[in-house]
Amino acid sequence: MPNHRLILSYDGTDFFGWQTQPGKRTVQETVETAFAELVGQKRVRLNASGRTDSGVHAVGQVANAYFQTRIPLPNLPAAINARLPGDVVVRSIEIVPDEFDATSDAIRKMYRYVIHDSPSHDPFMRRFACWSRHRLNAQAMAEAAKPLVGTHDFRSFETHWPNRETSVRTILHLSVNRFGDYIWIDVEADGFLYNMVRAIAGTLINVGRGYWPIEKAEQALHALDRAEAGPTAPPQGLFLMRVTYER
Amino acid sequence: MPNHRLILSYDGTDFFGWQTQPGKRTVQETVETAFAELVGQKRVRLNASGRTDSGVHAVGQVANAYFQTRIPLPNLPAAINARLPGDVVVRSIEIVPDEFDATSDAIRKMYRYVIHDSPSHDPFMRRFACWSRHRLNAQAMAEAAKPLVGTHDFRSFETHWPNRETSVRTILHLSVNRFGDYIWIDVEADGFLYNMVRAIAGTLINVGRGYWPIEKAEQALHALDRAEAGPTAPPQGLFLMRVTYER
Repeated sequence: MPNHRLILSYDGTDFFGWQTQPGKRTVQETVETAFAELVGQKRVRLNASGRTDSGVHAVGQVANAYFQTRIPLPNLPAAINARLPGDVVVRSIEIVPDEFDATSDAIRKMYRYVIHDSPSHDPFMRRFACWSRHRLNAQAMAEAAKPLVGTHDFRSFETHWPNRETSVRTILHLSVNRFGDYIWIDVEADGFLYNMVRAIAGTLINVGRGYWPIEKAEQALHALDRAEAGPTAPPQGLFLMRVTYER
Repeated sequence: MPNHRLILSYDGTDFFGWQTQPGKRTVQETVETAFAELVGQKRVRLNASGRTDSGVHAVGQVANAYFQTRIPLPNLPAAINARLPGDVVVRSIEIVPDEFDATSDAIRKMYRYVIHDSPSHDPFMRRFACWSRHRLNAQAMAEAAKPLVGTHDFRSFETHWPNRETSVRTILHLSVNRFGDYIWIDVEADGFLYNMVRAIAGTLINVGRGYWPIEKAEQALHALDRAEAGPTAPPQGLFLMRVTYER
């Protein structure tokens, strides 16, 4: 059966993350079920670039799936989207070589962490940002972030996850920018450890709040100890923006 | 007790509109209860510029309320917001003359109706826009809207509402603008009939879709017959943006 590459967006608020779990509403199961019904297969398995956790959003999650259908390719997104709930959408579908694997072929991923720092919360953005009632110093956060760029052992920014072989990753880009009452932390890397972006965000928030000096982020990195970095920031601020492949 | 003018924003999705109704979650009751607890009064009554319906949002709803508190005025918004759920926020509070009445003193209101017209739905905007899978002709909609500006009997754009004295209103501004995959219909008037903006939006959508010629909106206006205008567009696209007072 032909292999397909899909790009998906979802509001993670009402999902228990990407990966199928018994009795939980997940993105994977929701989209797999819709595809199976659409193409008339017993099961269509979606293989994503990676899991996203409960409450985490995706603008450009990528998955591949093998299925056969008579629906012409240009009509497929509309056909599948008509079967999906409002909080998930398939943005594009293309046919790719059989050997394409959305998990192992990903060479880079880009995440954005969004913070709203204002004395009052924003009713329209509460699902899509982490709220801080205190103003953060975005310039200090940007300074603190600089030493994290490059190839490092990031175990200080990893929630314990016994299965990994190495905690060395390469951050290619890390920026902190303010737009009015919003701060965007953009991180692109060749791969991410479990909760890595949220631990980086929690560390930078402690700096932006003035709890920690700018140097603390670099010290936490070199300490190779999760306890030295900041808390895992809440999921609603996190977006998987883009996954990059060779081809 | 001093009279206060409040500006509120809310995501209307999970409210049964502004006005208190037994057994329903409404904006009025949610905010009144929080104020009563904060200032230690049995009841604090909020008198809004007007009701908003179930599912309709507000960026700048205005209300007045009489209460007494020792909390200094600059600290009041943070104090009340700490008691409010994430989907409603008090943006500002000021002390106003006793005679100020948010309902009868309003001289103009501005509403925005937001349409997302794209083959795929947008998971992040589904609560805040009306979705059309078909592209609409925004220029034709803007043309069709022009004859509605001015003082007219708008009964063709009113859901039957027996209590009103007159259905004559003055539209001061009505514009239709496209921003990418979004269309904003902005309407400012000295007052609005029940469901008036949503009936105007439904009429303009029929024009934008090509079902109706541009002249149909003007014909519907002159027909003085609700059946001649378009359907009442869904509530999630509607925002009360601003209320204007003399002082």
